[in-house]
Amino acid sequence: MKPLNIGMVGYGFMGRTHSNGYSQANHFFPCEYKPVLKAVCARNKDKAQAFADTWGYESVETDWRELLKRDDIDAIDVCTPNNLHKEISIAAAEAGKMVLCEKPLAMNQTDGEAMCQAVEKAGVKNMVWYNYRRVPAVTLAKQLIDEGRLGQIFHYRANFLQDWTINADVPQGGAATWRLDAEAAGSGVTGDLLAHCIDTALWLNGQIKDVSAMTETFVKERMHSETGKKEPVKIDDACSFLCHFDNGSLGLFESTRYARGHKALYTFEINGENASIRWDLHDLHRLEYFDHNDDSIVRGWRSVHVSDGDQPYMGNWWVPGLNIGYEHTFIHQVADFLKSLETGEQMHPSFRDALETQKVCDAVLDSAAQRVWKEV
Amino acid sequence: MKPLNIGMVGYGFMGRTHSNGYSQANHFFPCEYKPVLKAVCARNKDKAQAFADTWGYESVETDWRELLKRDDIDAIDVCTPNNLHKEISIAAAEAGKMVLCEKPLAMNQTDGEAMCQAVEKAGVKNMVWYNYRRVPAVTLAKQLIDEGRLGQIFHYRANFLQDWTINADVPQGGAATWRLDAEAAGSGVTGDLLAHCIDTALWLNGQIKDVSAMTETFVKERMHSETGKKEPVKIDDACSFLCHFDNGSLGLFESTRYARGHKALYTFEINGENASIRWDLHDLHRLEYFDHNDDSIVRGWRSVHVSDGDQPYMGNWWVPGLNIGYEHTFIHQVADFLKSLETGEQMHPSFRDALETQKVCDAVLDSAAQRVWKEV
Amino acid sequence: MKPLNIGMVGYGFMGRTHSNGYSQANHFFPCEYKPVLKAVCARNKDKAQAFADTWGYESVETDWRELLKRDDIDAIDVCTPNNLHKEISIAAAEAGKMVLCEKPLAMNQTDGEAMCQAVEKAGVKNMVWYNYRRVPAVTLAKQLIDEGRLGQIFHYRANFLQDWTINADVPQGGAATWRLDAEAAGSGVTGDLLAHCIDTALWLNGQIKDVSAMTETFVKERMHSETGKKEPVKIDDACSFLCHFDNGSLGLFESTRYARGHKALYTFEINGENASIRWDLHDLHRLEYFDHNDDSIVRGWRSVHVSDGDQPYMGNWWVPGLNIGYEHTFIHQVADFLKSLETGEQMHPSFRDALETQKVCDAVLDSAAQRVWKEV
Amino acid sequence: MKPLNIGMVGYGFMGRTHSNGYSQANHFFPCEYKPVLKAVCARNKDKAQAFADTWGYESVETDWRELLKRDDIDAIDVCTPNNLHKEISIAAAEAGKMVLCEKPLAMNQTDGEAMCQAVEKAGVKNMVWYNYRRVPAVTLAKQLIDEGRLGQIFHYRANFLQDWTINADVPQGGAATWRLDAEAAGSGVTGDLLAHCIDTALWLNGQIKDVSAMTETFVKERMHSETGKKEPVKIDDACSFLCHFDNGSLGLFESTRYARGHKALYTFEINGENASIRWDLHDLHRLEYFDHNDDSIVRGWRSVHVSDGDQPYMGNWWVPGLNIGYEHTFIHQVADFLKSLETGEQMHPSFRDALETQKVCDAVLDSAAQRVWKEV
Repeated sequence: MKPLNIGMVGYGFMGRTHSNGYSQANHFFPCEYKPVLKAVCARNKDKAQAFADTWGYESVETDWRELLKRDDIDAIDVCTPNNLHKEISIAAAEAGKMVLCEKPLAMNQTDGEAMCQAVEKAGVKNMVWYNYRRVPAVTLAKQLIDEGRLGQIFHYRANFLQDWTINADVPQGGAATWRLDAEAAGSGVTGDLLAHCIDTALWLNGQIKDVSAMTETFVKERMHSETGKKEPVKIDDACSFLCHFDNGSLGLFESTRYARGHKALYTFEINGENASIRWDLHDLHRLEYFDHNDDSIVRGWRSVHVSDGDQPYMGNWWVPGLNIGYEHTFIHQVADFLKSLETGEQMHPSFRDALETQKVCDAVLDSAAQRVWKEV
Repeated sequence: MKPLNIGMVGYGFMGRTHSNGYSQANHFFPCEYKPVLKAVCARNKDKAQAFADTWGYESVETDWRELLKRDDIDAIDVCTPNNLHKEISIAAAEAGKMVLCEKPLAMNQTDGEAMCQAVEKAGVKNMVWYNYRRVPAVTLAKQLIDEGRLGQIFHYRANFLQDWTINADVPQGGAATWRLDAEAAGSGVTGDLLAHCIDTALWLNGQIKDVSAMTETFVKERMHSETGKKEPVKIDDACSFLCHFDNGSLGLFESTRYARGHKALYTFEINGENASIRWDLHDLHRLEYFDHNDDSIVRGWRSVHVSDGDQPYMGNWWVPGLNIGYEHTFIHQVADFLKSLETGEQMHPSFRDALETQKVCDAVLDSAAQRVWKEV
Repeated sequence: MKPLNIGMVGYGFMGRTHSNGYSQANHFFPCEYKPVLKAVCARNKDKAQAFADTWGYESVETDWRELLKRDDIDAIDVCTPNNLHKEISIAAAEAGKMVLCEKPLAMNQTDGEAMCQAVEKAGVKNMVWYNYRRVPAVTLAKQLIDEGRLGQIFHYRANFLQDWTINADVPQGGAATWRLDAEAAGSGVTGDLLAHCIDTALWLNGQIKDVSAMTETFVKERMHSETGKKEPVKIDDACSFLCHFDNGSLGLFESTRYARGHKALYTFEINGENASIRWDLHDLHRLEYFDHNDDSIVRGWRSVHVSDGDQPYMGNWWVPGLNIGYEHTFIHQVADFLKSLETGEQMHPSFRDALETQKVCDAVLDSAAQRVWKEV
Repeated sequence: MKPLNIGMVGYGFMGRTHSNGYSQANHFFPCEYKPVLKAVCARNKDKAQAFADTWGYESVETDWRELLKRDDIDAIDVCTPNNLHKEISIAAAEAGKMVLCEKPLAMNQTDGEAMCQAVEKAGVKNMVWYNYRRVPAVTLAKQLIDEGRLGQIFHYRANFLQDWTINADVPQGGAATWRLDAEAAGSGVTGDLLAHCIDTALWLNGQIKDVSAMTETFVKERMHSETGKKEPVKIDDACSFLCHFDNGSLGLFESTRYARGHKALYTFEINGENASIRWDLHDLHRLEYFDHNDDSIVRGWRSVHVSDGDQPYMGNWWVPGLNIGYEHTFIHQVADFLKSLETGEQMHPSFRDALETQKVCDAVLDSAAQRVWKEV
């Protein structure tokens, strides 16, 4: 068993999902490498220590620059708000550490490009936590597409719908709500939610050529946790866009935090000449599949309960019919990363992969601001 | 176009569904014969006349015996409460009329046997309105079974769940609630609802060998519309039973009017060696189908939207994707009856077919009363 | 009973749905007026006669101008391909006939405006067959919105997905496939399918301000039924658009005939501050409803089976739990039109209402052609 | 942090789910106690060691009697086939160990009674792993019932459907298929699957009074892994029963391994006067809830996505909308057991609770064998 010594920066929601991934991967996926939780780093020492106690981190740091200096750390996991991804990732690469960065990669394409160059120049392993690629049903979708079952693709549509910011009393800024603060988050739903939809789309359906987008900020001012005053809201509450893919298919994407009744409804549907696929995160263990080759009188959407041993990742879990959940996507990503260390193959999504998503996000925001079609 | 002159006895809910069937059949199903609404018969002349005006009956009668004497009537449609089926049907047969009788056939097996003998002796066309056989999805289920797609059958389960009598203020007796009065209805859910489940089951899965049943009457007394007083309730509010089919499969049936949340949820599911089927009346246009021969990674229950031209009856309706509803089962039954007049073939379900259902109902009620297994 | 004498032009799919509406309305909805099927008009006399025989039209005409001259006709029903709507409707109005025109109203806004002026100048009753307003679940949605249950609206999304033209061997032109011929249809999915989505949206959510659209023609050439040769396809196979509504909400619309697995899937979803609603035509008897005021631990989307007596139109049909289908929307529209004759109130959607939909369609097609946002 | 030293006997499927529970409980549920994986015991030392390496057990034993002698063990977890539960549990109790026993408690009521007496006499903590009580949606159902939301209960129905033994080539006996061997398993689906349904039912709906059951063994002979020969199959492949609950409601239960299309479909539905509830394991994160008090025009089954912080257990997991899965039921059971050590309260289900389920199972098997109603 070879150790992979982890130093994590941040300890929020994503800090928990990643820590769980490190703890669980080797219980289910036999790997030569095994993560060792060496240190967690955060400005508030008490909170960092409490987190370390819960998850079994061996030590805490309060300055990420100190963490980077430590010889006993192999990989830096960047779980901070978006505005810190660039600086920490580049410094980590320069320190020769592997870099595992939360999504979105960067605040914008320029920053993202600099981050790619840094990891590539340093030759360090890198990946971005676009975890939804590793929902078994989504991985199965990729497999079906790669097998050519869909034929020519006509349509790709995706959305990511939430409703948690309808209440105008939700503040912006601070630990729980930095995603509403443009300073920390860069953008609103575009970088937070649509970025997931775009990453999956590029993976499943190839490059996007051009976009026409529309954004909206429904609540114009919110109390800022740091200033204690009402401040203008500068992020996008909702964003939708039309697009063309390189393969000739049409795309339709939407994201919002104002869709009453949806907690975290990420869905996509792909319509091909011969078959169609759809999936949604609220029932993430099911893949809906329509095969036009089925005998016509009994043709219909199949609700595939993805829990069998021959379906992606599921052979390592329980028995048919028994579901796994959200957190397992991170366990899979850790396991796949560990395997990439064994095989020496490039892990995906890499920084470079994530930069493609960043480009689309930038084009979307530009298109919305200027009310014109934008090439990606 | 040859006329089929109809004389209907009764004008309640079933009077409407049948009248609609007669009015609509030839609009959608080209037939040599065409129903002509000659007369409707009911004790209350005003109500009968109003019904005749709405549906276009040419005349009204107030005594069904007079109706039977008329030469201009070919077929008697018996839409009365259950306790009148026997007398009217036998008299109609003896008068040489075709007899189209509402379900259940009779108050019990003995009466049913007498009715069968009457129509058979008279050699008159006969049928019973077990309309659910002619939901396109149900007819499709029959077709799939007949094609041998399911293989050996292991399980058949069905239920019919309603919730309209939970309120203890619902009375018994009278035009709207005669189904709660044992005098008029014979039994409660057994004859009203389970009879439908049993008819379908015998059609799809063959004979039932033996049963073990349980009945319950939750509300023990209800106001009687005729006496104006609280009277003991003598019908079964709920009934469920276990059974063995001749083909070796196990059956499980349940019916109740105390299943809060279900208006008229008739469902069945059949599990075979190679495939399974399920259906429910609340979404009657869908057949759920599972085919074990599907490629394992994309195997799942298919939700078949039964609205295509190659699915039963649907080629005569609209275009794919557009639903028909409940009333169409009666239109189909009329159309099939008209065709049987052309071809001379026996229409199903006949009185004799319906007697088989009656036998099972009797065994079920006996089993429940005696708390023993009963042979059918 | 007052007669409403109908003269119908055309006898295709819509000719059947309208004729059924006329035949059935008075069976279920007590009205002072009653349609009388006086004449059907089509160039092919034999086919017209066969249609008349099926539905009980008293006579046939082969020239619609002759039909307009007849004194025994009160209302002209225009069921022709789109390119004839204008001429016939205007002439009918000028002849003092009521005009009941299939949707979309016209080939474009200019024609539509002329048609509005004609019926208004003549002072004749008029309506357009946007039938989906009268699906009981859709009417219920309108009622819930009018009661203010949703609060401020944030999002409206709708799509209409079909898959019947994926096969490149489907021809254009002719009786069955005139919808693929720009000459006869004007546009493709925009006028055929999106027009339905837009009519409902304007009714439920108010005016649309501006649009950004994208269209595509996947199959560039198809055999033309009239020339017998491959001809360029000039209609839109797919169309999607972003928009802003006057009430500040964002809209997203999509339509295509290349969505494998969907026969006629018209869906919409409306997200309000306090509640959300969604509906789809494949299960047209259900309204999905989410109410944020529900107790949080049991809050969830409700699947409302719209079949109770207190839900729109359903009190006139069967009993709770029993579905009606697609054709009933036309029966409801006829019944409501008959009632409007009694009350003297304006029937909706009128020509003027339908013109608003036409304006949006034109803006959508212009936006797609020019790749710019267009004001409506 | 106080250690709870675990010694586990067995390392199969349940060994994995329990070990995961011990590993994960303190990551999510703050507890004073923390499980320490001291030893795993199995006859095959190499396999035991491999299991210990994967899960971090500190040592291995090959004789459970030796395990019981160790002073460094606080609790014995019995994960063996059913026929060993009794001997090990009683010996563990006598050795003063806490006993955490897999379900079903015993091979029959007599053995179960002896086990109860042993733990009670020894005064040791005990519990049985009926894990489904701790699916958040199921725990929520219990909460809703305890709050009195359902009113008088009329019906309880449950089934547990699988399809993995349809193939007659599946052997009996041995590590993977001991559940088909009556010697090791005691019964078939009754003890394996129905026992789960019964445990939940007794918890949610109270005691069962009497039962009428039917069992079937579809495949009469199977190769035995130990004898290498075809041997008669003595377990029940399918079992269903009718019953009365003490509260006056009617029950209907079914289980089978021959329901093609169902992997592990455990479902239950409860119909009360005022509300109904249903749940199924294939979509375990949803609770279906119908509340008759809802405004009638928008009344319908609510699909409650149980993932909010105010729903049972979910406040300790991720954020609203993100699912947990099957394995979490065991994590919850461990966490609750740890808390019971803090509070000193009796953990449920205890051996005594599980004995009640055993009584029903015995009555069911007796009823089926004798074809009579049996009191429990």
